[in-house]
Amino acid sequence: MTHTPRLYVPVITPFRPDLGVDHAGLVKVARMMLDDGADGLAPFGTTSEATSMSVTERMSALEALVESGIDPARLIPGTGCAALPDTIALTRHALGLGVKGTLTLPPFYYKPVSDEGVFASYARVIEAVGSDRLGLYLYHIPQMTGVPITLNLIDHLVTAFPGVIRGLKDSGGKWDNTAAVIAAFPGIATFSASEALLRQNIAAGGAGCISASANVNAAGIARLIRAVGTAGEQAAADQAAQVRRIFEGLPLIPAIKAAIARRTGDPAHAIVRPPLVAMTPEHDAAITAALTLSGGLPSA
Amino acid sequence: MTHTPRLYVPVITPFRPDLGVDHAGLVKVARMMLDDGADGLAPFGTTSEATSMSVTERMSALEALVESGIDPARLIPGTGCAALPDTIALTRHALGLGVKGTLTLPPFYYKPVSDEGVFASYARVIEAVGSDRLGLYLYHIPQMTGVPITLNLIDHLVTAFPGVIRGLKDSGGKWDNTAAVIAAFPGIATFSASEALLRQNIAAGGAGCISASANVNAAGIARLIRAVGTAGEQAAADQAAQVRRIFEGLPLIPAIKAAIARRTGDPAHAIVRPPLVAMTPEHDAAITAALTLSGGLPSA
Repeated sequence: MTHTPRLYVPVITPFRPDLGVDHAGLVKVARMMLDDGADGLAPFGTTSEATSMSVTERMSALEALVESGIDPARLIPGTGCAALPDTIALTRHALGLGVKGTLTLPPFYYKPVSDEGVFASYARVIEAVGSDRLGLYLYHIPQMTGVPITLNLIDHLVTAFPGVIRGLKDSGGKWDNTAAVIAAFPGIATFSASEALLRQNIAAGGAGCISASANVNAAGIARLIRAVGTAGEQAAADQAAQVRRIFEGLPLIPAIKAAIARRTGDPAHAIVRPPLVAMTPEHDAAITAALTLSGGLPSA
Repeated sequence: MTHTPRLYVPVITPFRPDLGVDHAGLVKVARMMLDDGADGLAPFGTTSEATSMSVTERMSALEALVESGIDPARLIPGTGCAALPDTIALTRHALGLGVKGTLTLPPFYYKPVSDEGVFASYARVIEAVGSDRLGLYLYHIPQMTGVPITLNLIDHLVTAFPGVIRGLKDSGGKWDNTAAVIAAFPGIATFSASEALLRQNIAAGGAGCISASANVNAAGIARLIRAVGTAGEQAAADQAAQVRRIFEGLPLIPAIKAAIARRTGDPAHAIVRPPLVAMTPEHDAAITAALTLSGGLPSA
């Protein structure tokens, strides 16, 4: 099975100065990403600070996106929590809104845990939701969770729940692992977490990327996807690499939010929730450079 | 300042076969621990699978304990979550029930995070709760959280919130760290997470222990605390070490729950939530041995 490569943006969550969720800001940034050429959004992931939000806040924010008119079929929201009942509640709620699928972290407090225990967790979610419309994307980000999504676990899940397990986002940063997942499970959509691996991902039969830096370069990354195999491929890849490199020396999520605040003109969009710490003005030059490269500087 | 050494039991949370929280079972096990001689309880910590429970479940279970007549002044419930609003809600709720204090994890999804970010998280909790009755115990368990409670962080918190920061549970397993905390901050109550370090803790001026294995040996550990400095100290320490060693080869939380199920005669008390996996019958002999040593076998 081949996959048409896509870009889903793990869109940041704007907060207000009182740290409440800024729904209008979220809708604005989400639309900006789609207007830039993203195929869809993967809100409420790591870049979105979703694990710093309550279940109620996550539900309300997803509702705000859908009520704003964004097609839910273009949304793959994050729904994984440390606590199983929370993951079930969020997954059921997202499905009820008609989303394309959910990008679901394994439970991430206990470590190490066995594949058997992680399987049981996903199985409980799938059984509790109990709908053949559910499409679940596994979220491999062991540097945060301490809980890898192993090939063995994917195999058990795909076998037990064919059709439900639709894909995987590999945020582990190791291309060999992504290649192994694509080779072993060609029927599911395997996304890379960085556009740095996008060309390898597409060549191997992967499904594209869900990349944090797409928040500041959705247009460039979407252009790269379309350019793969054409004369423009190298130039598009070079542009994406240039933008990405600027962020490599910075705390990624605060830097991305600072860049979005510059682009939208709303300084509150740079606010992060603890335990993250907002960028300091000393990084303004780097952020301006990134926005200049990505074409995201306000025209003012 | 000297601390009278205490035993707080991080009591397990019994679940029903449908994985719902068994309030009656929780109250029963909690009373058993107090009857065995524990000074108090530290429910809803790591051993209690609290991070596998929703905020609502945690609130209801704490209410069940207090409504059963257990003195809230003997309770130090866990209230730390990945999401700041959840930690605030649980801490405020627990304080409203009159608890002695809360044992509060740092936010545990993102890693690494800075002391500045963790400070901001605790500061937001303290300011949001906004009560001079709040007593907060820091929870250092870096092998689960990836977020150590450093000496630098404690210093900043104790300075900013004198009287609120009441203590720390050191589950890191390194005596040198516990000794450094006690030496630097003699005014706060520093608990060890294992009775293996209890005698060192007391000798150094610590506050005792909050130990998972107290769930199966509360009587023995309480006896050891009273025996420190007396002729019976070595015998009491030997008994505690014997019980503890049996559990060292087993997955700790499932093994403790299996032992409690044997003691109470309710097999459901062995149930764990995913991602933990329940014990298998092959370990029955070890569990029987532990209960024989601790005096916890049913008299039937």
